[in-house]
Amino acid sequence: MAIAMNKMSLVQMLHAIEQGEYSAEALIHACFDHIEAREPEVKAWQYQLDRSAYLSHYRDNQSFYEASQLKGLPIGIKDIIDTKDMPTEMGSPIHKGRQPIEDASCVALIRQAGGMVLGKTVTTEFAYFKPGKTQNPADLARTPGGSSSGSAAAVADGMVPVALGSQTAASVIRPAAYCGSIGYVGSRGEYSLRGGQPLAQSLDSLGLFSRYVEDIQLLRAILLRQSASVANANFAAKKPKRILFCRGELVGETSPAMNEAMQALADKLVAQGVEVIELEAGTRLQEMVDHHGNIMAWEVCRNLVLESQQPDLLSAPLKQLIDDGLSMDRETYLSSLKAAEACCDWLWSSNSNIDAVLAPAASDIAPLGHDKTGSPHMSRPWQAMGLPVITLPGMTDDNHLPLGIQLIGKPRTDDELLQVAKWVESLLVKA
Amino acid sequence: MAIAMNKMSLVQMLHAIEQGEYSAEALIHACFDHIEAREPEVKAWQYQLDRSAYLSHYRDNQSFYEASQLKGLPIGIKDIIDTKDMPTEMGSPIHKGRQPIEDASCVALIRQAGGMVLGKTVTTEFAYFKPGKTQNPADLARTPGGSSSGSAAAVADGMVPVALGSQTAASVIRPAAYCGSIGYVGSRGEYSLRGGQPLAQSLDSLGLFSRYVEDIQLLRAILLRQSASVANANFAAKKPKRILFCRGELVGETSPAMNEAMQALADKLVAQGVEVIELEAGTRLQEMVDHHGNIMAWEVCRNLVLESQQPDLLSAPLKQLIDDGLSMDRETYLSSLKAAEACCDWLWSSNSNIDAVLAPAASDIAPLGHDKTGSPHMSRPWQAMGLPVITLPGMTDDNHLPLGIQLIGKPRTDDELLQVAKWVESLLVKA
Repeated sequence: MAIAMNKMSLVQMLHAIEQGEYSAEALIHACFDHIEAREPEVKAWQYQLDRSAYLSHYRDNQSFYEASQLKGLPIGIKDIIDTKDMPTEMGSPIHKGRQPIEDASCVALIRQAGGMVLGKTVTTEFAYFKPGKTQNPADLARTPGGSSSGSAAAVADGMVPVALGSQTAASVIRPAAYCGSIGYVGSRGEYSLRGGQPLAQSLDSLGLFSRYVEDIQLLRAILLRQSASVANANFAAKKPKRILFCRGELVGETSPAMNEAMQALADKLVAQGVEVIELEAGTRLQEMVDHHGNIMAWEVCRNLVLESQQPDLLSAPLKQLIDDGLSMDRETYLSSLKAAEACCDWLWSSNSNIDAVLAPAASDIAPLGHDKTGSPHMSRPWQAMGLPVITLPGMTDDNHLPLGIQLIGKPRTDDELLQVAKWVESLLVKA
Repeated sequence: MAIAMNKMSLVQMLHAIEQGEYSAEALIHACFDHIEAREPEVKAWQYQLDRSAYLSHYRDNQSFYEASQLKGLPIGIKDIIDTKDMPTEMGSPIHKGRQPIEDASCVALIRQAGGMVLGKTVTTEFAYFKPGKTQNPADLARTPGGSSSGSAAAVADGMVPVALGSQTAASVIRPAAYCGSIGYVGSRGEYSLRGGQPLAQSLDSLGLFSRYVEDIQLLRAILLRQSASVANANFAAKKPKRILFCRGELVGETSPAMNEAMQALADKLVAQGVEVIELEAGTRLQEMVDHHGNIMAWEVCRNLVLESQQPDLLSAPLKQLIDDGLSMDRETYLSSLKAAEACCDWLWSSNSNIDAVLAPAASDIAPLGHDKTGSPHMSRPWQAMGLPVITLPGMTDDNHLPLGIQLIGKPRTDDELLQVAKWVESLLVKA
């Protein structure tokens, strides 16, 4: 059975256009057909071009798009990332109708490559905890996770092949895990964050959502302005030799279903001849959860200056975070930064010969309800260390709800991590 | 002889207002008197409120300013930092008339504390090499240095007590050294850079200009949202026990005049009972100059995406930097990042018990002419390591032109560095 047009990967779509199998317009229509059917329930979009506006812009610039790398195919942008032609409201009434004067550099690069911004995807309030309107496409009664809620839901559901997000705590990994998409977080410092509204400078990372690892590799090459030859050399899949297995209990509580899924994947890796090594971390990663929280509180209240002047328009959890940051001792902040650095040194010097860490991407399937976005614990340690991370879908519970796992790489080894992820992806698809 | 009103420190001005010695308006007038006399030659301002607009805004909000910490006193903002009520043109024709929709967080914090933005100070093109119109107030025939040319010149000349800048290579330290002001660069990650237009994420730091160290301490406390009691505890001067003496030749070429000034200051320290230890660095710091250049080229071309779409409006050196970054091998970039980290580890593990490094802030006095901004070499190594740095004036050549020295601290020990700088400042004033 052929894959539905709207569920193809971006790379597959581009190949189909190249081969004359589908036109770009036919693929664009397939995405809009799906959005029109599903958006009333999923509510992934904060702002969205309608079909006629999209096509009209596409046709006005058709020769540019036809000659371009991304052929005018659609992409979603988290509403914390500035766009010059669409509002960027950051999930807050403070910024209702806020219209940036420039594209963020990540948006400019995608547009330059011929990607078209279909719209802005729902974010929680300033990429922190207060949920937007989005519902989980795998089960509408559940949270999509946050903060990149709309990007994860839109991609998982097949509305767009790819979307941009950002992560400061768990804002890419958790919604990807809950919705059943791929979510990738770049190493700290890896991408230009110009025009992405910052939350915490020691933690913020750019994130990407897709349904196939190959699309992450493609977008990464565009965001790094890499030539086709450099990019192609990185696109292979690579079977890992050694995977470090991080049980959920090393970080926090995980459900029996998640623990079983993790064990099943570890068994599968062993059956493939991969050496799976049990991580022994003592209480280090649990402590890292708190250190991450300290760094975030200290820095958030010094970034959200304009907003903390309007406390009545902030949610209670965000006000609390700002108050925590303001009352924090600087020594606490600095010692948490040092602890994160020391933990990173310890992790990779004790395990220098492994290809990736395998860990739960969330504690469980997405929780029921829409008033919270689930626990960020499973991401905090890795984010505090600034590591590249990718969540892969494919494991599920008895009700076929997504149980995301994550692979974590050494600092700045994003290419190598994606190659390993591409190999593990093939294992999960075969499941 | 009493100090001229426009040459007082911000702290002295606030004290004079408190004591009823001068009114805020009288001090504001003194600044404007000086600007009107000197701006036609110094050309520090890209955009500037005139006296009547300033006073009218002050009087409309007089009760706020009178109750505020900074009393409505004026500050300059480098034109690479966004302001919601003044254009931010980044020294480039590409952004002529560009009007941001929000204040950068550093601007918002200063305004919240009752500082008034008098105007935007001249920057080189995107804080890189192409000079703006500013002339060195110590000798108009000379460059003020860059990129924070206007901030350094305005403060050194007595137009405003303090100004904000930024540094990616030498953009605070060099112009401060050339013009004869204090320039302070915060540790990497120390301050929110929200709304400051980024050039290179692994190198960009916020900078501050003043004529007295106490003003840097005051502004730092405001930018960190510290309470008065926390801030006051950091305001002491501290006599250092051990200073590591870094001769210019360890980094690059320095003039005989600079070498003499450095030796004279080292002798003065020894005479005060400070242990001055000669740094032995082999070629490490010279290599760091090149590593810094690599990191900068790789990252700049991925931040200036919008701008590199308009190559005809870019200067030749900036186009070259972008081309260098685009053609650079990723391994080169990553190995330069690693080298900077390793150099930082080496420096502080080999010299863990020193209070600060003393080094030349520039190779010489400001060069003659206005077509270049002087060599950035003397700053590149420290900036690549992300260290806090402060330039102090006070040393001069035979013609009384400023020869800046810099003090460099361990990562994130900004408070301790400023305390040491305050003590060294007293030594230089006594000279």
